[in-house]
Amino acid sequence: MLADNFNNDEKYILRRLEITDKKKGFIELLQQLTVCDSVSDKDFEDRFEELVSEGDNHVICVIEDGNTGKIVATGSVFIEKKFIRNCGKVGHIEDVVVDASTRGMNFGKKVVEFLTQHANSMGCYKVILDCSAENRVFYEKCGYKQNQIQMVKYFS
Amino acid sequence: MLADNFNNDEKYILRRLEITDKKKGFIELLQQLTVCDSVSDKDFEDRFEELVSEGDNHVICVIEDGNTGKIVATGSVFIEKKFIRNCGKVGHIEDVVVDASTRGMNFGKKVVEFLTQHANSMGCYKVILDCSAENRVFYEKCGYKQNQIQMVKYFS
Repeated sequence: MLADNFNNDEKYILRRLEITDKKKGFIELLQQLTVCDSVSDKDFEDRFEELVSEGDNHVICVIEDGNTGKIVATGSVFIEKKFIRNCGKVGHIEDVVVDASTRGMNFGKKVVEFLTQHANSMGCYKVILDCSAENRVFYEKCGYKQNQIQMVKYFS
Repeated sequence: MLADNFNNDEKYILRRLEITDKKKGFIELLQQLTVCDSVSDKDFEDRFEELVSEGDNHVICVIEDGNTGKIVATGSVFIEKKFIRNCGKVGHIEDVVVDASTRGMNFGKKVVEFLTQHANSMGCYKVILDCSAENRVFYEKCGYKQNQIQMVKYFS
């Protein structure tokens, strides 16, 4: 699935990130998630090309509002290759965020379902993600279960 | 740091995984961690080459017992490239295990320190990992702090 119209009125389009999405508010959307200062066009394009070079092993999807041309939701998944589980693969979902103006429209669930389905199609035996305790119920609605704890070490 | 003798007697060597480590008990060590059936030489070599092609973005380290020629500890780290945090990078530590016969010798800490240092040298702003609640204290001794919760969805 590369693009998907939904919500009947076909106003919203779910697709992979494109290099022109910086002009459509992609970075401003990420700023609703965490620390994300403005990114120069060159830095954006360099990082975009790095990620594209990973092909299906690192996918960022977005939902675009066809009326406004704005990106209103996003999330990413990358595929980790392991030796365990018979040289198995694991999907890691990161950086899921929905624009504050469109919350309650199930866009987060659409994004997580797309990323989960991508990991499945890549042959992963599981998908994992880390979230705050307050987002547990949301991910349970997406078919996830609480499992381990996350530990972190910051360098800066 | 590509290789590191320690413990004074220089019996144990910390280094990156090599393709010959399958003969030194690397897979049997992983079996102490989780489900890991025997892996054919070809599957091992194919996965090894895939990971090597990722260069410094995916590193597996091992500790070899120089007396027995056995791999007694391992762990991996891969580098995720993001747009947030000014196109920042995050290290993900996975699959840390120490052979049951050598526990209590600080090999787990050596492995985690090596992987953490690698992520730092790659310019990551943080390193994360998921673990069971019972391993929390171990990772705290490695400088990590509990943060979020992990959610999982299994396909098989």
